[in-house]
Amino acid sequence: MSEAIGIGMLGAGNVGGGVVEALQQGAERYAARVGRPLELRRALVRDASRPRPGLATEQLTTDVDDVIGDPGTQIVIELLGGEDPAREYIERALRAGRHVVTANKEVIAKYGAELLAVASRHNVRLLYEASVGGGIPIVQPLRRDLLANDVHTVTAIINGTTNFMLTAMAQDGADYEDVLAEAHRLGYAEPDPTDDVEGIDASYKLAILCGLAFHVAIAPDEVIRQGITTLTASDFTYAAELGHTIKLLATGRLSDGELVASVRPTLIGYGEPLAKVDGVLNAVQVEGDLVGRVLFEGPGAGPRPTAGAVLADVLDVARDLVVGREPLNQITYTAATVRAPDDHESRYYIRMTGANQPGVLAKVATALGEHGINIASVIQFGMEEDAPTEEFVITTYLANGGRLRTALEQIDGFDEVVVGNVLAMAS
Amino acid sequence: MSEAIGIGMLGAGNVGGGVVEALQQGAERYAARVGRPLELRRALVRDASRPRPGLATEQLTTDVDDVIGDPGTQIVIELLGGEDPAREYIERALRAGRHVVTANKEVIAKYGAELLAVASRHNVRLLYEASVGGGIPIVQPLRRDLLANDVHTVTAIINGTTNFMLTAMAQDGADYEDVLAEAHRLGYAEPDPTDDVEGIDASYKLAILCGLAFHVAIAPDEVIRQGITTLTASDFTYAAELGHTIKLLATGRLSDGELVASVRPTLIGYGEPLAKVDGVLNAVQVEGDLVGRVLFEGPGAGPRPTAGAVLADVLDVARDLVVGREPLNQITYTAATVRAPDDHESRYYIRMTGANQPGVLAKVATALGEHGINIASVIQFGMEEDAPTEEFVITTYLANGGRLRTALEQIDGFDEVVVGNVLAMAS
Repeated sequence: MSEAIGIGMLGAGNVGGGVVEALQQGAERYAARVGRPLELRRALVRDASRPRPGLATEQLTTDVDDVIGDPGTQIVIELLGGEDPAREYIERALRAGRHVVTANKEVIAKYGAELLAVASRHNVRLLYEASVGGGIPIVQPLRRDLLANDVHTVTAIINGTTNFMLTAMAQDGADYEDVLAEAHRLGYAEPDPTDDVEGIDASYKLAILCGLAFHVAIAPDEVIRQGITTLTASDFTYAAELGHTIKLLATGRLSDGELVASVRPTLIGYGEPLAKVDGVLNAVQVEGDLVGRVLFEGPGAGPRPTAGAVLADVLDVARDLVVGREPLNQITYTAATVRAPDDHESRYYIRMTGANQPGVLAKVATALGEHGINIASVIQFGMEEDAPTEEFVITTYLANGGRLRTALEQIDGFDEVVVGNVLAMAS
Repeated sequence: MSEAIGIGMLGAGNVGGGVVEALQQGAERYAARVGRPLELRRALVRDASRPRPGLATEQLTTDVDDVIGDPGTQIVIELLGGEDPAREYIERALRAGRHVVTANKEVIAKYGAELLAVASRHNVRLLYEASVGGGIPIVQPLRRDLLANDVHTVTAIINGTTNFMLTAMAQDGADYEDVLAEAHRLGYAEPDPTDDVEGIDASYKLAILCGLAFHVAIAPDEVIRQGITTLTASDFTYAAELGHTIKLLATGRLSDGELVASVRPTLIGYGEPLAKVDGVLNAVQVEGDLVGRVLFEGPGAGPRPTAGAVLADVLDVARDLVVGREPLNQITYTAATVRAPDDHESRYYIRMTGANQPGVLAKVATALGEHGINIASVIQFGMEEDAPTEEFVITTYLANGGRLRTALEQIDGFDEVVVGNVLAMAS
């Protein structure tokens, strides 16, 4: 019972450093909980001459086969991030009979189903708790603890960078460019923030959540996606006057075999639990037929929380190895149609600027009506009587996305009106 | 692969009805997720002549051996509640080689460690996700998803009845007797509400959480316990003026091998996540060295949420049975000292009534000081100059429970002062 369980690492950056540190600090505890010690063997790095805390020079390698091919390694942790070469390395490790634990949202979102099939064929496990929600337990709870439910809706805040930015905009009345600069200064935003602010990162995570929650395979590019770059301080002011805040909400909803998945800035009422999830926190709300509604909230990123999620998967595999349990990789996907943006219904918030003259609003309202868009409210804020233009917000009842797009194209053609911003409203 | 997995039930009341209904509604989905159909076989009831929805008369029995002894039954669900005869039946089922899924907090809190050992010896599993937090996944996340963490604190609202009552007191300014009557009227409180309002139910659940979070066995009667029956409308008024609300908080904290576990009405600041958990909702907050802080929130009771948790355990066992995986029941308990109430430190809120004359406060402050109790603030509310007595609240810094008790006994002996209520404050 004293032979160590060998662990190899692909990548030893931020999260990798957290994993190495936790493995050292927790060595005794982990050995007790697993029944055998864990041994960190080789780590693939780009530059093997650069020293890494907790790793000896002879453990570092630039050759992936030194990690995957090591006969003493049973579990490979993949922390390279990005698609290439991570996808290929994961597949090679599975084919070599290694269990794989990954934090790679992009690879799992794009190739999860096929990699799980490879794992199954080679009688090993592929686990990815850390790919969504950082330290929040959500992958395994969906796979296991909520499995008796018919889950119909998942609503999540799963990008810490944008949630930090939107929280600052809501609380300080700051503009987009200012909060982006602040996020850069604090290291919350990448030098190129595109993946975060355009909702790409969140779309990967939502695709993974949909697979787990609904047992439906959806590609990340099928997720309806809108970034936060067009939000202005005035949108937060108007939302607040409507009793709402604005969050980058990732939403998946399955009904009658049709899946609607979207990542977009969304107005949500102050009373909603997700409205109170602020700063870099993440949260995932799951709704099912038995449980009703359950919420998971915690740190969505950071080396230590993410390392905790990675190592939970590692310990799970290790415990099975100790007692000789067979792997269980069973995900059964059912078929579903994914709704295109134009077929999708939502309530909307539309900010416009119009000439301050009679008949403008009537023209807009008529155009919307002709396209079957039902207006819920029209609100003019801080109108000055002699201003040449005025800003106003129209909110709609549930409206078809395609019809709204056509209506707004027509309205944008009017000389008297400019469409400013169009945001979804949670209903 | 088409042979059914046989399920027997002990008890077919509220939660049992939820389980039967869910098994019928979800039959097709469960068969797909498990790989074989689930078959509900016999159910132990007190009165076999009373019809039960979803169960045929010939499925009902008053003889426990008809359920446990049925060779076609692999999984026994125990939903009798209470200690006797549930504990004995669970043990008999395990000895007969049946996997057992239970929602029984009392039995698991008191006999969990020994029953898990019995299960292990007979190579079967004993699962109890539904015993804490109803539909909230918390047992398995602590056992599995947070296992890499050194968890040091668990803070929870795990009794829906009292949380409903305290929320009503906080929001409506109502008195204890009024909200208890309302809870009775709505069916949230038992005819004899002792187990809920005295924190006994919560102490069972906290003992279970401590075992999972800290790998320490603690008996429920080692939990420091205070009920909510002495709370008055004025306590909520005073707490609000201090920026706090009052919750029945279950707290477990492990440091240097010493465990402090308590269930008691506690002042918590409005900014704390648990302060916003209202009504019959439950929430469990877990703090560990890697994850930082993570929160699980959802319905803590009700037939459908609880049935969802029971069936998650059932599906887990069933999937293992289908692929022939060996059971894994491994919980390793480490030794810990449990702190007695008198050795425990907390901040405190003390409400007193004193004669409206000079020197009273000085006398109280002196007595506290002599026992090493550090006063944080003294607040008099709505004092009238010519009233014969006045009410005031003293809050303390961290104070030793035993010393405070002695000091308050001395103060209560003064002619000029009556000690009204003493509550913990979250620090």
